[in-house]
Amino acid sequence: MDVTQLAEQVIAGNRRALARAITLVESARDDHREQAIALMEEVGKSGRQALRLGLSGTPGVGKSTFIESFGMMLIREGLNVAVLAVDPSSSRSGGSILGDKTRMEMLSRERAAFIRPSPSQSELGGVARRTREAVALCEAAGYDLILIETVGVGQSETVVAEMSDLFLLLLAPAGGDELQGVKRGIMEMADLILVNKADGDLKAAAQRTCADYAGALRLIRKRPQDPMEFPKAMTVSAIEEHGLEAAWAEMNTLIDWRRENGFFDARRAEQAEYWFGQEIRHGLLRQLEREPLKSMIAGLAGKVAGGEITPSHAAADVLKALREGYGPSGP
Amino acid sequence: MDVTQLAEQVIAGNRRALARAITLVESARDDHREQAIALMEEVGKSGRQALRLGLSGTPGVGKSTFIESFGMMLIREGLNVAVLAVDPSSSRSGGSILGDKTRMEMLSRERAAFIRPSPSQSELGGVARRTREAVALCEAAGYDLILIETVGVGQSETVVAEMSDLFLLLLAPAGGDELQGVKRGIMEMADLILVNKADGDLKAAAQRTCADYAGALRLIRKRPQDPMEFPKAMTVSAIEEHGLEAAWAEMNTLIDWRRENGFFDARRAEQAEYWFGQEIRHGLLRQLEREPLKSMIAGLAGKVAGGEITPSHAAADVLKALREGYGPSGP
Repeated sequence: MDVTQLAEQVIAGNRRALARAITLVESARDDHREQAIALMEEVGKSGRQALRLGLSGTPGVGKSTFIESFGMMLIREGLNVAVLAVDPSSSRSGGSILGDKTRMEMLSRERAAFIRPSPSQSELGGVARRTREAVALCEAAGYDLILIETVGVGQSETVVAEMSDLFLLLLAPAGGDELQGVKRGIMEMADLILVNKADGDLKAAAQRTCADYAGALRLIRKRPQDPMEFPKAMTVSAIEEHGLEAAWAEMNTLIDWRRENGFFDARRAEQAEYWFGQEIRHGLLRQLEREPLKSMIAGLAGKVAGGEITPSHAAADVLKALREGYGPSGP
Repeated sequence: MDVTQLAEQVIAGNRRALARAITLVESARDDHREQAIALMEEVGKSGRQALRLGLSGTPGVGKSTFIESFGMMLIREGLNVAVLAVDPSSSRSGGSILGDKTRMEMLSRERAAFIRPSPSQSELGGVARRTREAVALCEAAGYDLILIETVGVGQSETVVAEMSDLFLLLLAPAGGDELQGVKRGIMEMADLILVNKADGDLKAAAQRTCADYAGALRLIRKRPQDPMEFPKAMTVSAIEEHGLEAAWAEMNTLIDWRRENGFFDARRAEQAEYWFGQEIRHGLLRQLEREPLKSMIAGLAGKVAGGEITPSHAAADVLKALREGYGPSGP
């Protein structure tokens, strides 16, 4: 594969090239990985920057409807929109390409939209890397806004927040005054909370829930990257397309402020460092599952289980092999 | 330090040698670690086996009182008892040696008891290894029963369950019919649930809570390592010393059954393999914080943050250095 050519096609806005490039970064094969690393270097030269919007919401809050309505609104404003997903559970069903396109029926027909489901990987580390690289590819391809959605399984909110410029939390109106069990850690990541379904019978409940969250957000310590009155909670109705423009205006206010005050670039730099650390950890642990370490570990594990050698001693042997080098230079 | 001599003294039941040996395995110094590995090999030759009892309970359930009453009962039966702790939060207060001894006032005065607080380490991986090795040291020193307690912060229950033959969950009577928010994962680890404070005004509530948990345990899938009627929920009163002998009898029933059916040895073998894997992971990640990798990573991190190189490319460079060997053989 000619990586330089593929990079040029991606930057030229060729949709098929973009799809092929994403398939390449999703591959677990060693030779593909080496090409993917070269590809990412090449497309990085485009210098393009999109707005990266992370979106988390549990099933039932109307995430697909929100993405459909919000995405269509952006397209009407003349923007190109890419939709990516981080769903570590999607491996069970072998991916959900069809599912993703049918649940955003209008958006998927738009030329200005590009929708790509979560890679089918059971391991969050793998899904994270591949989505992060797909984000950079879409950015190089000239998309103005990249929506990265997650259902919030396990650590997937952190993964999405660490690759987003803005992190949106989509919620449904709550019955009563409870806060739907949203974890404090997730509240602290959110830049904007949107309470969906503020329509029909649920309108009053949505407004109550929104007020509850607005109150909760005021109790959370102030972050340096937020101007006055942020993070905010707002109501929207994806189905009636209410509140979407107001939400978009707030996002722009926040992003403009962060750009002006240096927080936008600082966050991107921090995120790059974060992913560097994650890549190293992930790569290291993968080495343990490969030869020659795999056989060495399996042999020692038998001795450890049989009580012939202590776990600490066996581990020290493996680490010694690592320090001294355990294999030829490869990808 | 003469490690062979220290091992002999530990096996001879010398308390000061045991304390020194634990201090050695708690040390983060490289030369100490090397000696600790040799020491663990030496004491392993004693061939002694204690019963390892893990105990989890959040603050307020009466954990100290339970250990005091239960420990005194065991000592009256002629057993030697060691008490260790896994508390990753204790680093904040710089350890709590005094605290641990004063909260088990009677037990700490007994010659047949050995109490050692959690090592002062902020990192759970470090606390886990050190406690696991301290357990093996107490075992070699001839203690019949080793109680390993935890307050259940983060993953500390898993750590304790993975070094225990039996895992006890201590609970307080609940108001109403809620299950105190005990996570399912922890319920699934428990071999015996003890609802404490079954005395005075709380007696009826304790019995209700116990019945609720007994019901919940029946809904959890059957594990092969459990005979009929296990895991069980029972009420105890640590302060009135009620139910402790019955609980001890149940523990013995369960352990005897597991010994006869091979589950006792199988679990110990699995645990040794588990800790082997953890030691490797922990050791690998520690290598990243040391020279020469530390400087290499810091240099690359700057370039990654500045956008000169992608996170994946930089990580591949680090992993390549690892494969080719990055340092002389050391501890």
